[in-house]
Amino acid sequence: MTRWVLTLSCPDRPGIVAAVAGALAGLGGNITESQQFGDADTGVFFMRVECEIDDAARDRVEAVLRPVATSFEMDWSLDVVGRPMRTVVMVSTASHCLHDLAHRQRAGQLPVDIVAVVSNHEVLRPIAEFYGLPFHHVPVSRDAAPGGPGSKEAAEAELLRLVEETGAELVVLARYMQILSDDLCRALAGRIINIHHSFLPSFKGARPYAQAHRRGVKLIGATAHYATADLDEGPIIEQDVERVNHDDSVAELQAMGEDVERRVLARAVRWHAEHRVLIDLGRRTVVFR
Amino acid sequence: MTRWVLTLSCPDRPGIVAAVAGALAGLGGNITESQQFGDADTGVFFMRVECEIDDAARDRVEAVLRPVATSFEMDWSLDVVGRPMRTVVMVSTASHCLHDLAHRQRAGQLPVDIVAVVSNHEVLRPIAEFYGLPFHHVPVSRDAAPGGPGSKEAAEAELLRLVEETGAELVVLARYMQILSDDLCRALAGRIINIHHSFLPSFKGARPYAQAHRRGVKLIGATAHYATADLDEGPIIEQDVERVNHDDSVAELQAMGEDVERRVLARAVRWHAEHRVLIDLGRRTVVFR
Amino acid sequence: MTRWVLTLSCPDRPGIVAAVAGALAGLGGNITESQQFGDADTGVFFMRVECEIDDAARDRVEAVLRPVATSFEMDWSLDVVGRPMRTVVMVSTASHCLHDLAHRQRAGQLPVDIVAVVSNHEVLRPIAEFYGLPFHHVPVSRDAAPGGPGSKEAAEAELLRLVEETGAELVVLARYMQILSDDLCRALAGRIINIHHSFLPSFKGARPYAQAHRRGVKLIGATAHYATADLDEGPIIEQDVERVNHDDSVAELQAMGEDVERRVLARAVRWHAEHRVLIDLGRRTVVFR
Amino acid sequence: MTRWVLTLSCPDRPGIVAAVAGALAGLGGNITESQQFGDADTGVFFMRVECEIDDAARDRVEAVLRPVATSFEMDWSLDVVGRPMRTVVMVSTASHCLHDLAHRQRAGQLPVDIVAVVSNHEVLRPIAEFYGLPFHHVPVSRDAAPGGPGSKEAAEAELLRLVEETGAELVVLARYMQILSDDLCRALAGRIINIHHSFLPSFKGARPYAQAHRRGVKLIGATAHYATADLDEGPIIEQDVERVNHDDSVAELQAMGEDVERRVLARAVRWHAEHRVLIDLGRRTVVFR
Repeated sequence: MTRWVLTLSCPDRPGIVAAVAGALAGLGGNITESQQFGDADTGVFFMRVECEIDDAARDRVEAVLRPVATSFEMDWSLDVVGRPMRTVVMVSTASHCLHDLAHRQRAGQLPVDIVAVVSNHEVLRPIAEFYGLPFHHVPVSRDAAPGGPGSKEAAEAELLRLVEETGAELVVLARYMQILSDDLCRALAGRIINIHHSFLPSFKGARPYAQAHRRGVKLIGATAHYATADLDEGPIIEQDVERVNHDDSVAELQAMGEDVERRVLARAVRWHAEHRVLIDLGRRTVVFR
Repeated sequence: MTRWVLTLSCPDRPGIVAAVAGALAGLGGNITESQQFGDADTGVFFMRVECEIDDAARDRVEAVLRPVATSFEMDWSLDVVGRPMRTVVMVSTASHCLHDLAHRQRAGQLPVDIVAVVSNHEVLRPIAEFYGLPFHHVPVSRDAAPGGPGSKEAAEAELLRLVEETGAELVVLARYMQILSDDLCRALAGRIINIHHSFLPSFKGARPYAQAHRRGVKLIGATAHYATADLDEGPIIEQDVERVNHDDSVAELQAMGEDVERRVLARAVRWHAEHRVLIDLGRRTVVFR
Repeated sequence: MTRWVLTLSCPDRPGIVAAVAGALAGLGGNITESQQFGDADTGVFFMRVECEIDDAARDRVEAVLRPVATSFEMDWSLDVVGRPMRTVVMVSTASHCLHDLAHRQRAGQLPVDIVAVVSNHEVLRPIAEFYGLPFHHVPVSRDAAPGGPGSKEAAEAELLRLVEETGAELVVLARYMQILSDDLCRALAGRIINIHHSFLPSFKGARPYAQAHRRGVKLIGATAHYATADLDEGPIIEQDVERVNHDDSVAELQAMGEDVERRVLARAVRWHAEHRVLIDLGRRTVVFR
Repeated sequence: MTRWVLTLSCPDRPGIVAAVAGALAGLGGNITESQQFGDADTGVFFMRVECEIDDAARDRVEAVLRPVATSFEMDWSLDVVGRPMRTVVMVSTASHCLHDLAHRQRAGQLPVDIVAVVSNHEVLRPIAEFYGLPFHHVPVSRDAAPGGPGSKEAAEAELLRLVEETGAELVVLARYMQILSDDLCRALAGRIINIHHSFLPSFKGARPYAQAHRRGVKLIGATAHYATADLDEGPIIEQDVERVNHDDSVAELQAMGEDVERRVLARAVRWHAEHRVLIDLGRRTVVFR
């Protein structure tokens, strides 16, 4: 018996649930989890279904679902529940997020298969090696000739090559401190998750903990979102906060913030890898937790 | 057009979702919200569906659903979304929960119709009257002859009479400091919500804030649960906590706790009144938020 | 015996605590609570001390503290612990904050004495009257001649008159939806608390819940801050958040947000009235909770 | 210049703060942080002071403080701020807490020096070695002769020997699943911190996540406390919770709980190592955060 997860979005109209449930019933399927949301503002309907079916043949399941999908103009995807998603993790020098993701993968708590760790520095190589993860040093230098070795363009080309070579389905920016080009964001749209170390939309841009300290906020936060060409404006997947006091220094905010960052990022990656996150018109997310 | 809410539970087996969705589609219904849960431990399946149907005739909707319900051995209920649930609120002398519920009802944030406020004291009468709610003083005295005027038995009989007279569907113990008899709990099973001023199962019984202070816990909480004959053991609907410090006195814990109590109770009442809470074998709740 | 609360700020240098504690010991005082903070960025030292002294004569306590205060160039204030602070509450039509503050005052949980409720509408008069609070309708009309009856200038003059007449020490903007003039903010600097219905600095300005919904944030919040000429930029006293989902409408965000607003505002008012909040160079607050 | 941290407790009476502050002022000290608490129930006064003094000679500081301490009958301790506390971490097979503590130590966020990792299993040796921490396998077998090799008595003797040999000041039970003897608890009283995987006093004893699942609680938690002979009854240092739903399995509760456990434990260890935790009559803690 196989447990499938079906996600779909389409224009909202009557009969979608009945059609999907009917098709799955026709396969002898047992729906074990089902969530849906109709966005009244955009008229888009979203659904996620987990269904146990005796026959494990993907062809047969797809053959039954395809006519339904066509008739309702669905964007849809079908996967096996729990299949690890092939993932590239990009880092610079901060280790907490990489450690956390790798530890959770090994503990069986994160359905990802980290196929590459990519960094513009060498410093996190030992951590990658400790977890047995392939490490790729892809340096980026401001002094490099545009498009030449060590340039941002070359680094992004190398990243895309690695994504292709490894068959990666997801790229996680785990405190990768480089700004990506619009082209790269578009090429990987809906497949790059970034962790921003503030409670967006507060404190966009650089040094958010210093900004938070200066403003005197009483809670600091972190935001996991899909990276888009519009920096720090991509659809938000998850956020959380931690209480701070007047006597916490910027360094203390940063230390406390790292805890929030890693748990927010881990949740976002898990939900994405479990096909729980759908994007609503490129601006907001629907998260079926 | 009417928006209906259907809730059901039945033995888990394939085809339930398809059958329900198919029946609703046959009525031209548009499912706008749907949640389900199959409890693997107990083999019970739970579902809640909101569905817009042009025809507002309850008879017709029920006629279509009944054969499905019968064939799957469902416990089921059908209501109109947003219909205020007729509710009796029982209080003693603490005002915060009554104030809160009444204020939310008036603000249109709680789909209840408080048809009676019942108290063993007179002290909260002005609050009930401010909100225009009928107030009933039903005294309970330890000195009363068993079953005689002022006895617990007489008070409970009067409560049941009021429930019947007002057609109340829900009784809320909003810091009503009397222990109810087993018979009353059974008579109103699944229809009485109590707010306990601790994070159950910690600090059952009397004076939970004093117990919490003595134990030196770092968070205090409140628990809304269905009242059962087994005191403080009924199915939990909602819980929340607040951080406390070593220098908070019992009185301060109580003041902070009242905030938690009222928001936990308000959520539980709202979810119950919206048919979002189902009881799983009398022990746990399924809450479709 | 009287319990005094002393708050002070001064340039940071060695010996401050010893001098203050020595002076209080000389009065036979018993320090029951003491907190301090030296801001390394600004070089300002802040302190709050509660002290029990047998002799209740304010003159004598001040006489002993004055030389210490002078020698360290202190800004300082002395009050009796628990003395209710005379407070004006300003509202428009939303009732939840007024209800909450009035209820807490009556329950003995907020050391304020609400000497006036001022509103540009009549709609909350019954609530003020229920709690026995003087209600003043001070209309503001866009059509009024500048400075004439019903103008913003006339309304602010009336507010200042009321503050003077009642001896109010604090003004609380409890969802008063008018923007105050720079002059008024300056006249009442450090004595006006506003509740903003977002997690500042996110979503400044109007309709923050609609902004939050559009941006798809996963937590909504509220911020209590001192009102300054620079709108939504005053020193933050307290903030809190609540988790939201993709399917919460703007109206639902608003209903959930009201819970956050009232508890954030109540905390800020309580801490201010207990002399727990000091302002650090006009930009950040030091909160000795 | 040296920054000292002084902690003390003594019978509460007037003049303590003045005496301590005066003594430090006599040394030319600058108090940078100071907190105090008088427990009205027990009559015990607690204080923690950080003070910068030019002269780094411990002898001279102690010589000035000793007469004050004697005259007020103080229990007191003096340490240099930030000095890493020598710590033994005990584990079984669960890795998350060890990983977290070691990572925080290396990141400079936890003022401890892990001098030994002790385990009754070999499974976590690679993690200890990755972080360069000495690993000691001290097996415990139910089949061992009492007091003989592999017995609980022998294991505890070996632990005490390691504590002595390494000069360890703190023992952390980071999911060490063995019950310690009363003798060991007494020998290390106030110096062993345990993490219990429930929100104590709920769900004492074994398999707390299974208990929590059965009871249907809506929040799960973790508790860091000093280990005492009275199992799960020691003074609580820190607690936190996480929201759960009806559809979270025991395994999911456990995975979510591990996040809570590690952050609760890390906070407790940091606060202890920074001398922020004092024990009030063996039952409650005073935490000067």
